[in-house]
Amino acid sequence: MKIRIIVPIISTAFNQEVLKEGAQFAAPDVQLEVVNIQRGPASIESGFDEMLAAPAIVEEVVRAEKEGCDGVFIDCFGDPGVVAAREKVSIPVVGAFQPSALTACALAGRWSVVTVLKNVVPMLRDLARRLGVESNIASVRDIDTPVLELQDKQVFQKRLLAQIDRAAREDGAEAVILGCTGMIGVARWLQGEMAAAGHPVPVIDPTAAALGYLQLEIRGGLSHSKTCYRSPPAKERRR
Amino acid sequence: MKIRIIVPIISTAFNQEVLKEGAQFAAPDVQLEVVNIQRGPASIESGFDEMLAAPAIVEEVVRAEKEGCDGVFIDCFGDPGVVAAREKVSIPVVGAFQPSALTACALAGRWSVVTVLKNVVPMLRDLARRLGVESNIASVRDIDTPVLELQDKQVFQKRLLAQIDRAAREDGAEAVILGCTGMIGVARWLQGEMAAAGHPVPVIDPTAAALGYLQLEIRGGLSHSKTCYRSPPAKERRR
Amino acid sequence: MKIRIIVPIISTAFNQEVLKEGAQFAAPDVQLEVVNIQRGPASIESGFDEMLAAPAIVEEVVRAEKEGCDGVFIDCFGDPGVVAAREKVSIPVVGAFQPSALTACALAGRWSVVTVLKNVVPMLRDLARRLGVESNIASVRDIDTPVLELQDKQVFQKRLLAQIDRAAREDGAEAVILGCTGMIGVARWLQGEMAAAGHPVPVIDPTAAALGYLQLEIRGGLSHSKTCYRSPPAKERRR
Amino acid sequence: MKIRIIVPIISTAFNQEVLKEGAQFAAPDVQLEVVNIQRGPASIESGFDEMLAAPAIVEEVVRAEKEGCDGVFIDCFGDPGVVAAREKVSIPVVGAFQPSALTACALAGRWSVVTVLKNVVPMLRDLARRLGVESNIASVRDIDTPVLELQDKQVFQKRLLAQIDRAAREDGAEAVILGCTGMIGVARWLQGEMAAAGHPVPVIDPTAAALGYLQLEIRGGLSHSKTCYRSPPAKERRR
Amino acid sequence: MKIRIIVPIISTAFNQEVLKEGAQFAAPDVQLEVVNIQRGPASIESGFDEMLAAPAIVEEVVRAEKEGCDGVFIDCFGDPGVVAAREKVSIPVVGAFQPSALTACALAGRWSVVTVLKNVVPMLRDLARRLGVESNIASVRDIDTPVLELQDKQVFQKRLLAQIDRAAREDGAEAVILGCTGMIGVARWLQGEMAAAGHPVPVIDPTAAALGYLQLEIRGGLSHSKTCYRSPPAKERRR
Amino acid sequence: MKIRIIVPIISTAFNQEVLKEGAQFAAPDVQLEVVNIQRGPASIESGFDEMLAAPAIVEEVVRAEKEGCDGVFIDCFGDPGVVAAREKVSIPVVGAFQPSALTACALAGRWSVVTVLKNVVPMLRDLARRLGVESNIASVRDIDTPVLELQDKQVFQKRLLAQIDRAAREDGAEAVILGCTGMIGVARWLQGEMAAAGHPVPVIDPTAAALGYLQLEIRGGLSHSKTCYRSPPAKERRR
Repeated sequence: MKIRIIVPIISTAFNQEVLKEGAQFAAPDVQLEVVNIQRGPASIESGFDEMLAAPAIVEEVVRAEKEGCDGVFIDCFGDPGVVAAREKVSIPVVGAFQPSALTACALAGRWSVVTVLKNVVPMLRDLARRLGVESNIASVRDIDTPVLELQDKQVFQKRLLAQIDRAAREDGAEAVILGCTGMIGVARWLQGEMAAAGHPVPVIDPTAAALGYLQLEIRGGLSHSKTCYRSPPAKERRR
Repeated sequence: MKIRIIVPIISTAFNQEVLKEGAQFAAPDVQLEVVNIQRGPASIESGFDEMLAAPAIVEEVVRAEKEGCDGVFIDCFGDPGVVAAREKVSIPVVGAFQPSALTACALAGRWSVVTVLKNVVPMLRDLARRLGVESNIASVRDIDTPVLELQDKQVFQKRLLAQIDRAAREDGAEAVILGCTGMIGVARWLQGEMAAAGHPVPVIDPTAAALGYLQLEIRGGLSHSKTCYRSPPAKERRR
Repeated sequence: MKIRIIVPIISTAFNQEVLKEGAQFAAPDVQLEVVNIQRGPASIESGFDEMLAAPAIVEEVVRAEKEGCDGVFIDCFGDPGVVAAREKVSIPVVGAFQPSALTACALAGRWSVVTVLKNVVPMLRDLARRLGVESNIASVRDIDTPVLELQDKQVFQKRLLAQIDRAAREDGAEAVILGCTGMIGVARWLQGEMAAAGHPVPVIDPTAAALGYLQLEIRGGLSHSKTCYRSPPAKERRR
Repeated sequence: MKIRIIVPIISTAFNQEVLKEGAQFAAPDVQLEVVNIQRGPASIESGFDEMLAAPAIVEEVVRAEKEGCDGVFIDCFGDPGVVAAREKVSIPVVGAFQPSALTACALAGRWSVVTVLKNVVPMLRDLARRLGVESNIASVRDIDTPVLELQDKQVFQKRLLAQIDRAAREDGAEAVILGCTGMIGVARWLQGEMAAAGHPVPVIDPTAAALGYLQLEIRGGLSHSKTCYRSPPAKERRR
Repeated sequence: MKIRIIVPIISTAFNQEVLKEGAQFAAPDVQLEVVNIQRGPASIESGFDEMLAAPAIVEEVVRAEKEGCDGVFIDCFGDPGVVAAREKVSIPVVGAFQPSALTACALAGRWSVVTVLKNVVPMLRDLARRLGVESNIASVRDIDTPVLELQDKQVFQKRLLAQIDRAAREDGAEAVILGCTGMIGVARWLQGEMAAAGHPVPVIDPTAAALGYLQLEIRGGLSHSKTCYRSPPAKERRR
Repeated sequence: MKIRIIVPIISTAFNQEVLKEGAQFAAPDVQLEVVNIQRGPASIESGFDEMLAAPAIVEEVVRAEKEGCDGVFIDCFGDPGVVAAREKVSIPVVGAFQPSALTACALAGRWSVVTVLKNVVPMLRDLARRLGVESNIASVRDIDTPVLELQDKQVFQKRLLAQIDRAAREDGAEAVILGCTGMIGVARWLQGEMAAAGHPVPVIDPTAAALGYLQLEIRGGLSHSKTCYRSPPAKERRR
C-alpha cells in the first residue's frame, strides 16, 4: 500500500520530520512518500494561503494517482484543495481536519481544537459545520504562534499544554485535537501531562488520524463518493 | 457609489447582459462596472473550477479596492474566492449565494434553490451549512443544464419553471432562489407564472440580492468583520 | 420609491430623529415618511407591549399599502405585528430584528446583540430560532437601560461600548447588532471605538439593515411569500 | 384545584363540549371552568386572528388569577397570548401547542401534527422552533377544513384518519397530534383505527396534554419562570 | 389509577421517603406502590450501573403490567431500562429524565440540570440529544456528592443551592432540574431561596415531573408508541 | 497488535465468517481473535436484546484487557455495551455503528443506513443523535429480514441492492452503510452494482470501519476519553 503525503508549502523544512512522524502511524505494509509543492505559500494560515496552494496541491494529487499511489494525505489542517482534488481522482484523498474531527467524535462527546493563530479559527469552525459535527465542539483555541515558529518544540509544547489545560478545565473538552500538522511529535507527551494532572483527555495528532483514515479506506475498498464529488465537466480552462 | 462586478470566467459573453441586469437593481447614485478574469475556467460548475478561478478573482478584488470602488460583487452563485478576498480588502465583497440565501430567509420560512447541474448541489449545501441556515432549506434542485447552455432563454426558463413548481408543490418551498447567476432576466416571469398557477412564491434573482446587499452595506457604513476575515500574515508566497 | 416608517409607540418623541437617521440609509430616489400609532404602549419592552401595539401597527400597515407605499418598516427591534401585517398586505414589511440578524450573518460567522433590558432577551432568542440562525449567535447582552432613558446619548453609548467590548472579547462576537431601534446615531462611533481598541467588529444599526432590506426587496420585485404568510380567511371579527 | 379554560373566540358554540372533553382528563379534585372572550375573531386561523384575540385573552388570564384560579388553559393550538399572559401572572398558563408537542416527544421519536388549514402550518413550525423540538417533527399536515366546519364529526374524523395514515406511512410519524383544539372527541377513535390498521400510533388530544400539564405544574408547585417571562415594566399604555 | 414506582437499586433505604415524596404529586384517585430490585447496584452513577440494573428493572415493569398497574415510574434520573421496558409492555413507562426535561422546556427557554457526580454528566447530555432538546440546555452541573451521601439534607441542599445559583447567574438558566431522584424534599425550599435572592427560577423535582407525566398519559388514554418501541421478535434468549 | 472481536450472541454460527471477513481489513501485524457470549440472545434486534447481551459483553471486554488485547470490537451495529465497557477499561473499544457513521461522514455529505428490521430504526437514529451527526443522514431503510435469516447471501444481497438503490435515487444518499454486522461479504459486490447502474456510492461494511478505527486508535496511541467515560465508583453490586 503506497500513501503519498503532500506537504502543501514551498519549503522542504518539515519533510523529514513529517516522514518520521508518519511512519509511527503506518502498518508494516504501508509505504510512505513525501512531496512538496513548487508554487504557493511558505505556510498556510489564511484562506488566502489555501487559495494560493490549492492549484499545485491538486496537480500533485492527480500525479499521485497516475503514479499508482493508493491514497493521498494533504498534510495541512485546513484541508486545502481537498474538494477539488476529490473531484479529479478516484483514490482516497484526506486532509487533516476531517479525520481528526471524526476521530475526536469517536473518543469523546465534546472536544476542542488548539491551533496556531486566531486567523484560522473561523475557517476551522466552517469546516466543522460542513462536516456536520459542530455541536460536538467545546472550543477552538489558539497558541498565538505562527506555523513557521513551531520549530522550537520546547516553547510551543508548553503553550499547547496551557491551552489544552484550559480547554479541559474551562470549556469542558473531553478530548483535544492539535490543530496544525506542524505540531509534530508532541501529542503523546501532552496526553501524559494531562493524565498526570488529573485530566486524562486524549490528544489527537492530526497525522495519526489522517493516516489511520487512509488505511481504513484503502483496506475497506472505500473512497470518497463520486456522486458527492463528481468529475468536473469538460470545458476550456485557461491557466 | 461605485460597484464593480467581477464575472469570474474567461469569456466576456455574459458581460453586457450582466450590466443590464444589474442596472435594474441599482439606485440612481450607483455606478456599475463589469470586468472579467484572464485566467480560469469558461464557466464554474465544480470545486475544481472555483479553485482555478479564485486567484484571478482575488487579484481583481484587490485592484477594485485600489481603484476606489465602494464594493465588489463576485458574480457567481458558488461564492468563489469570497473568503480569501475578504481577508485582503476592507470594502464589502459579496458572492451570490450568501445574499440570496439571506434574502430568502427574510421572505419565507422554507425555501429551495434551483441550480444548473447535480455537480454543484453538495457545494451549495455546504455553503448553507457554513452560513448557518441549512434548516430553512426545503430542497436543492437542478435543471440538468450546463451554464454555457443557458443562452436560450426559452428553453431554460421552462426547465426552471418545472423545477420551481415541484419545489413548491412537493418540497414545501415557500420561496425559490435561482441558483446560477447566468439565469438572467427570468425571475419576474417565473414569479408571475407561479402566482398565476396558484403558488405565489417569490423567485429571487441572485443578482438582485447581491447588489441589494452591497448597497445596504455601503449605505450603512458596514463591511465584513476583520476579526472574522483577518488579514493574512506577511510571508513568502511563490506564484 | 416611497417607504413608510411606523414608530409603534404612542409618543412622537423619536420621530424626527428616526427620519433623520433613516435618511442616511436611503438612496436618492427613496421618499421616507414617519407615522405613529394612537393606541399602544409608550415603549416596547415586553411581549405584553408587543401585544398591545400590534393591532394599531397592522392597521397602519394596511393604510400604508392603500396609500401607495412601496414598503413599510415597523420600527421596533422585536418585530411586533410583522407576521399579521404580512398576512394582510402584499408590499414588503420588515421589522428591525430580521434584517439586522441576516445582515450580521452576511458580515461575520458569529455575532451578538446588545439590547436595552433583560426582559426582551428571551424574545430575541425566540426570534433568532424562528429565523433559523440561532447557531450563529455568540451572545445576547443588555445595558440595563429602559428605552425611554435612551435620550442621553452620552450615557447610553458608553454602556453600549462596554457591552460590545465584552461581547467581542469574552463571547467571541465578530459583529454586533444594536438591539433597539431607539439606539440612534451611535453605530459608527461605536464601530470606530472598537476598531481603535484593536477589535474591529462591524456595529449594525438596525435602521440601516431594515431600510437596506426594503430597498433590496423593492428594487428586486420581491416581497414576503404569500404561501408562507397567507391571507386570513374571511369571518366575523369583533373589535 | 381550580383550572379555568379560556376559549379564545367570540362564539360560545364550543363551550359545553370543551367542558365535557376537559372533564375526561381532570383528576377528581380538579374543578374546571370555561369562559369566552368578548372581542376577537370567531375562530383562530391566522396570525392576524391571534393578534386580535390576544388582548382579551390576557385580560381573562389576569382576571382568572385574581379570582383564585390555580391555572389557566388558553384553549387554542396556536398558543395565542401565552407569552404576554405569562408576563402578567404567576399561576401556570398553557396553550395547547406546547403541552402537545412535549407530550409527543415523550411518547415517540418522531411525530406529526394534523391541523385544519395550510394557513397555520408555518406558525406551527415556528412554535416548534421556539420550543427547540423541531428536529423531532416528521411532518405538519392539514385536512383543508376551516375550524368552523369542524361541527360534523363524521366528516372531519375521516379526513383526519386519512392524513394520520399518510403521516404514519409516508412521513415516518410514530405519534400524531391533533392540531386544533376544535378536534374534540375523536382522538381515541382515531388511535383505535390506526392500531387496527397495523400502525399503532398514539393520537394526542391537545386538551388532554394541556390539562395534564397544568395538573403536573400545580401539583409540583411549579409555574413558568419569571426570569424568562419577566413582569412588564410600568409605563403609559393607551388602549 | 395504580402507579408503581420501581426504585432500581438493591437497597430499600429510600423507599418510604420515595412514597411520601410521590404522594405529594398524586391526585386523590392515584394509588402509589413502591418496589425494589433484587439484583443490581446499590446506587446508579454510571453506564455500568445502569447496565447492571436494567434486566431486573424490566422484569419488574413486566410484572407491574401483569399485576394491573396503569403506569410505571422507573425512579432514576438516567432512565435505565426505559427503552427495553417500553418494548415489552403497553402501559406507560417513564424514567425521571425525560419528564423533567420536557417539563423544563414548558417553563423556560433555557434550563440547567444539577446532578450528583461528573460521572453522569455525559450520559445526561446523551439523553438530552436523544430527546431532541439539547439546544435548550444552559448547563449541566454537579455537586460532587455520591448518591449514597444524599442522606444529610442539610449538607446537600446547600451544595445544590450553590450550583443552582451559578446556573442562574453564570449560565443563563431560567429553570433548574434536580438531576437525581435521590434529591428528595428540597425543591420547594430551593425555589424559595432563589426567588428570595432575586433569581426566581422554577426548581423541578424529577419525581413531580415523572408522576405528572404518568397521570397525563393515563388520563389521556396515551402510552408510548408501539411503532417506535416495537415488541422484540421471538427467539432464543439465554439468561 | 492483538484485536479481539466479541460476537455478542449465544450462537457461534457466524464466528468463522466473522474472522475471515475481519482478516481482509487487518494489517499484517494485526492478530484477530473471536469470542462469543454465553448468556444473551441468539441475535440482537431490539433494545431488549441489547440489554440482555450487555452484561456478558462487558465481562468479555474486561477479560480481553486483562489478557493483553490492544483493542476490542463489539461486533454488533447497535453498539451494545459500548458505554459501560469503556467505563471499565482503558483499551480502545468500538461497536460497529460509530465507526461506520463517522466513516460515512468522511466519504460523503449525506448517507443512508440499510438495516435488517424496522424494530431497530429508532435505535439507530438515537445513536446518530448521540454522536452528533444526525443532520448528515439521508435515510434509514430496512430489508425486512431478521438477522438469523441473513444466511442466504443470494437473497439478502438482492434485498440490500433494492434498498440501496432507493436510498441513492429517492433519498439523496451519496454513501450507504450496511446496518447489521451480519451482512458479511457483500459490500464490494453492492458497490460495484451501484457504480455499474450509474450511482457510484461507497458501500460501507461495518466490520471494515470498526477494525479500521481500532487500528487508527492503537497506532495513534489513542483510546476513548476517561473524562467522558469515567470509571464507575466503587460500591456494592449484586448480580
